[in-house]
Amino acid sequence: MGGQRCCPEAEELSLANRSLSELTRKNRLEYYGLPVTGAETRYYTNHALSYDQAKRVPQWVIEHITRDKIVGNADRKHCKFKPDPDVAPLFSAKNEDYIGSGWSRGHMAPAGDCKFSLEAMTETFYLSNIVPQNYENNAGFWNRLEIYCRELTQRFDDVWIVSGPLTLPQVREDGKKTVTYQVIGSDDVAVPTHLYKVILARKTKNSTEPLAVAAFVIPNQPLGFDHLLPDFQVNLMDLEKMSGLSFFPKIDQGKSCHNLCEVDTCKLMNYKEFTVYITARKVQSARTLHRLEKVMTELKEADIQPDEYLTKLYEKKRAELESKEQSENKERRSG
Amino acid sequence: MGGQRCCPEAEELSLANRSLSELTRKNRLEYYGLPVTGAETRYYTNHALSYDQAKRVPQWVIEHITRDKIVGNADRKHCKFKPDPDVAPLFSAKNEDYIGSGWSRGHMAPAGDCKFSLEAMTETFYLSNIVPQNYENNAGFWNRLEIYCRELTQRFDDVWIVSGPLTLPQVREDGKKTVTYQVIGSDDVAVPTHLYKVILARKTKNSTEPLAVAAFVIPNQPLGFDHLLPDFQVNLMDLEKMSGLSFFPKIDQGKSCHNLCEVDTCKLMNYKEFTVYITARKVQSARTLHRLEKVMTELKEADIQPDEYLTKLYEKKRAELESKEQSENKERRSG
Repeated sequence: MGGQRCCPEAEELSLANRSLSELTRKNRLEYYGLPVTGAETRYYTNHALSYDQAKRVPQWVIEHITRDKIVGNADRKHCKFKPDPDVAPLFSAKNEDYIGSGWSRGHMAPAGDCKFSLEAMTETFYLSNIVPQNYENNAGFWNRLEIYCRELTQRFDDVWIVSGPLTLPQVREDGKKTVTYQVIGSDDVAVPTHLYKVILARKTKNSTEPLAVAAFVIPNQPLGFDHLLPDFQVNLMDLEKMSGLSFFPKIDQGKSCHNLCEVDTCKLMNYKEFTVYITARKVQSARTLHRLEKVMTELKEADIQPDEYLTKLYEKKRAELESKEQSENKERRSG
Repeated sequence: MGGQRCCPEAEELSLANRSLSELTRKNRLEYYGLPVTGAETRYYTNHALSYDQAKRVPQWVIEHITRDKIVGNADRKHCKFKPDPDVAPLFSAKNEDYIGSGWSRGHMAPAGDCKFSLEAMTETFYLSNIVPQNYENNAGFWNRLEIYCRELTQRFDDVWIVSGPLTLPQVREDGKKTVTYQVIGSDDVAVPTHLYKVILARKTKNSTEPLAVAAFVIPNQPLGFDHLLPDFQVNLMDLEKMSGLSFFPKIDQGKSCHNLCEVDTCKLMNYKEFTVYITARKVQSARTLHRLEKVMTELKEADIQPDEYLTKLYEKKRAELESKEQSENKERRSG
């Protein structure tokens, strides 16, 4: 390997020897295989992710949604949370880790973004797409953020979303910066302190308008209607530093992006809007007239007027359930 | 995409359409690039590693050592800790993160394993190979573990070693299992709670003897001579679960490996041996006769006899320094 500098031929030979020796060294190093992190990209029908085998949660989950994908007949009642068949059992979370832990199973790529395909929706229930999430946050603020992302497809042809968990440091009483997070179940599934979402929105494929981008870091705790989405907006590079990830690396760095919260609303549903939305979902899933009326009475008691969509939905459902219960009564009588 | 099951041709066509549609979907998803974790394998002269961009430390570092590699003229006095030029500055640790933090810069692939090549040794000083380590642990127990690994090359032709940091959970007073670790500097470099080492040793290339393996999890705190190495041995699969890593995946699972601690000593240097070893290193680096004599006096005061190697080293160094100081005195008088 000693590069004798007497003549070009010798130098070339030395270089060749060196490369050979490097190759041999690399082969030797890898002889029984390099450690495997399992962080390679895993592809699903409508999302892709990198899994964190140590924390038993995804590191990032990316999805692409359009106004077409978020409508359709796929229904989450046909879906069940379960271990991802492509994750080795040693590194997989299990439902038992979550059940009774005090933490909900929070989707990163939301089920509601996959109404176009039951297969796509089913795959969002794999635990590789799930993190331990505060129940109220999951059903409330995070849910409203997901709804806002879907709403964006009305104004943008293409929306890309990356979601994932974070375990962020805090300054302790003794002045030391410290990361602290709970782990749950026998698989030690890491409970994130925060969740992030990066949203990239494009008006149309051929639009010359800059892309719109925003990044949010949401504490994994109950957040009420007094919190506004822009309160949680962070600089994308700050999120990259916190998460150790580079997002949307192919975006031309020369071209500047718009701040989504300047070109769009970044406004989540307010209390009344959200209550009407949740009531509509309850109406849709009601199986008895009694249940249907109870749901609508609760709305009235909260002093909230149903909008036109909910009123029509209610009337349709009532007709459906009345006819169903009448025929059941008839059967019972004749039976 | 609707698979009409009328005839094989239609089915094939449907399958082709489906693949096309999947391809389009994947292209769309990846249009602006998937998030980049930076966990890809990075290769150096005598080690390879996967870097953790969020924690600013390696996730694993693998090296292969032989009795030839651990001897030579490469000297750490020519090496400096510095950021890895291949790690993006946003995700890199810096010396300033460590200095004054109360934590030492602990090598994963040790400098002392690369005596054969200054280039290889220099690369072990990249901060991609370094974790915040307790000073006493670094200079003491961990150092003795590294020496034991080198000692293994006397009895095994090939030794592979994987080292890395861990942040392990503890059960808190309230019964919750919690991970807690400090982060240091403006780059929030994660201080591990433990360090691991997996050792794989092979007698000779063509030996039919099973490979010898052992995994150790060492607390990142001062550990004295009352602790024995086997106290920290863990089952390899348990370490895999803790770390989220699969080690030496190409080892034939059918063939069982020996427990290294059964076929070899797993015995670290004791207090006397280690003091003689450290004294030898001090003797080697002594620059004045005064310093040299002081080092040897300290050994004597500790009531430890130098071995033959140290005695010879001392005599050689004394002759060298005497001649050096004499010529310096001569110069001074004539100058």
